[in-house]
Amino acid sequence: MRVTYEQMFQEFNRVLLKNGFSMEKAQVCARIFTENSRDGVYSHGLNSFPSFIQSLQKGTIDISSQPVKVEAFGAMERWDAKYGPGMINATFAMNRAVELAKENGIGCVALKNSNHWMRGATYGWQAADSGCVGLCWTTALPAIPPWGGKEAKLGNNPIVFSIPREGGHVVLDIAISQFSYGKMRTYQLNNEMLPMNGGYDTEGNLTNDPGKILESRLALPIGYWKGAGLALVIDLISMVLSGGRCVSELGKQETEHGISQVFTAFDLSRLPGHSEMSERINQVLDDFHDTELLDGFDRVRYPGEGTSHMRKENMEKGIPVVESIWNQVLAL
Amino acid sequence: MRVTYEQMFQEFNRVLLKNGFSMEKAQVCARIFTENSRDGVYSHGLNSFPSFIQSLQKGTIDISSQPVKVEAFGAMERWDAKYGPGMINATFAMNRAVELAKENGIGCVALKNSNHWMRGATYGWQAADSGCVGLCWTTALPAIPPWGGKEAKLGNNPIVFSIPREGGHVVLDIAISQFSYGKMRTYQLNNEMLPMNGGYDTEGNLTNDPGKILESRLALPIGYWKGAGLALVIDLISMVLSGGRCVSELGKQETEHGISQVFTAFDLSRLPGHSEMSERINQVLDDFHDTELLDGFDRVRYPGEGTSHMRKENMEKGIPVVESIWNQVLAL
Repeated sequence: MRVTYEQMFQEFNRVLLKNGFSMEKAQVCARIFTENSRDGVYSHGLNSFPSFIQSLQKGTIDISSQPVKVEAFGAMERWDAKYGPGMINATFAMNRAVELAKENGIGCVALKNSNHWMRGATYGWQAADSGCVGLCWTTALPAIPPWGGKEAKLGNNPIVFSIPREGGHVVLDIAISQFSYGKMRTYQLNNEMLPMNGGYDTEGNLTNDPGKILESRLALPIGYWKGAGLALVIDLISMVLSGGRCVSELGKQETEHGISQVFTAFDLSRLPGHSEMSERINQVLDDFHDTELLDGFDRVRYPGEGTSHMRKENMEKGIPVVESIWNQVLAL
Repeated sequence: MRVTYEQMFQEFNRVLLKNGFSMEKAQVCARIFTENSRDGVYSHGLNSFPSFIQSLQKGTIDISSQPVKVEAFGAMERWDAKYGPGMINATFAMNRAVELAKENGIGCVALKNSNHWMRGATYGWQAADSGCVGLCWTTALPAIPPWGGKEAKLGNNPIVFSIPREGGHVVLDIAISQFSYGKMRTYQLNNEMLPMNGGYDTEGNLTNDPGKILESRLALPIGYWKGAGLALVIDLISMVLSGGRCVSELGKQETEHGISQVFTAFDLSRLPGHSEMSERINQVLDDFHDTELLDGFDRVRYPGEGTSHMRKENMEKGIPVVESIWNQVLAL
C-alpha cells in the first residue's frame, strides 16, 4: 500500500495538532516524519510515529518549550533545548548554525537537554539545502562496550556529514554500531545471520547471530577499537561544548531524554570557485562509480545516492506504508 | 637501545639545518619527529626520518615556502601551503584555527597544496594544549575500494578528534583502514595472520592474510560501507573547503604531494563551567574504565591513554630506537 506525501503529511499534522502541538511545530514534525518515510527510512518515518505520540505521555518531551540561547561567542553558541521535541530542536539548531556560518564562514551550535532527533541525515540535508557543508552528531543511550570490555558504556552516537551538490547532496549518516538494533531484529525475524560479526554474545564472543546480540545488548562498533574511540570522543565533545549530559548520565535515566548534540555548518556560497565546485564534485563521484565490482554487486553508491533515488520513486508512486501502522495513525 | 629526547631532537635538527631548513622550520620538524618517537609512534618518528630527508631530493617539498592566506571569511580561512613541509604547514594551520577559535568561539583553516603531516595526533594534541577541542583530517593516496568495488578509489584519510584534559588529553587519531599498511607488514614479517579481516585478496575475497592484502593494495575500511562513506566525505569536504586537490587527483601523481586538509578548533576556555569540566571528563573516563573485561584484556584504554603512558616512560628511560636507523641518522 502507498499513500501520497500530502496524505501522510496531513495525517501526521492532524494527530500532532490534536496532541497539543502548535501549528508551527506540528508542521515541522509532520514534515520530518513524512520526509523520512519518503526517503525510504521508514523506521524513522511512519513506523516511529505511533510510538512518538505514545512517548508524549511519559512527560519527557515538553511540546511547548523553545530552545533558549545560553551563551554566545561569535560563531559558536550554546543553546538549551528545554526538553522540547528533538526534531524541532535539531532543525532549529542546524538552522542557527547555518545562520552563523553565513555570517562567519563557519558556525556551531551546541545543544543540551534535547530529545531524539529521529534520523540524523535530516539535518545534513538541511545544511546542504542551505549551501553549507554540514557536520552534526548526537549522543544516545549506552549500547556499545569499550574495546576489551563487555559492558555497554558508549553511546551509539550517530554522526552526519553532508556536502551540497546540484542533483542530490552527498549525505553520510552513520551510527557507531555496525548494525542498528532495528536491522538486527529484521535479520532475526527472517531467521538470517548477519553478513558479518555485529556484536557479542552474553559470554563476550563476537557473533553474527542477531538473536545473541539482541540478548546481550552489546553491539560491535565499526572498526572495533576505532569506532569505540569515536563513540567516546563524540560523547565528550558534546558534553564539553554543550554543558549538557554525557552518555553515562543518560544511561542512569529510565528513558533517553535530555541529550547533548552538536551542529556545525561551513558556508560554501561565498567561497570563490563555488560554481565550478559542482563540476569537481561530480568528477569525484564519476571516478568513484567507475570501479570494477565485487561479485554480487551491480554498482557502488555514494552516501545519499540511494536516498535520492528512493525519494524520486516515492514521490512518483506514493510512499509505501505498512497498512496496519498506517491504520493505527488514521485512528489516532 | 635508547636515546634521550634532547639527543634525538639535536640530531634531527642538525640534519635538517644541513639540508637547508631555516632554524625555525628545522626546530618544528625536529620537535615533531622526536615527539612522535617519544610517544611510541616510531613509524612516524625516527623510522620515517631518513625517508623524509631522502624525499627532499624529489622536489615535491619546497622547504623555503610559507603558507599564504588565500581567503578569509570571519572564523573560516583558506590557506595555500605552497608545497612546504607537511608538518610545518599542519602546525601552522592548527595554530591559526586555534587563534580564530579564541576570537570567534570556533575557527577553521582549510589548507591546499600541503604535504604528509606524519602523525595526525600531533595536531590534536596541539589544539588540546591550547585549551581547544580539535578536529582535523587529511586526504591521502587512494588505498581503499568503495563498498562493492575492487579498485582503490578512496583515500585512507585519517581523522583526529581531541579533548583537552588535565593529566592527559583524550586524542583519537584513526585512519579509515582497519589496519595500516605498516602494521600489516609487521604481521607479515612475523608470519602472523591479522586478528580480523583487514582487506581483500586480488580475487576480491575478504581476508586476514596480510600478504594477500599487501599484494592487492585493497585495505578494508572500518565498518565496511560506513568507513568507505567516511573516506569519501572527508575527501569531498577537504576539496570544497580548501579548493585543493581531491584524492583521485592525488592518485594520478607519482607521489603523495599537494594534499588538502581541514583543521577546526572549538575554544573551551571562555565557556562557563570550564573549571568543573575537567571533573566531569574524569567521571566519564572513570565510568569507561569501570567495565568487566573480555578474556585476554587486562584493561580498557581511552584514546590517548597509551600515548600518555608511553610518553612518560620514554621521557624517563629514553626513547627506544632501532640501532641501524639511528646510526643512519647520525651519518646523514
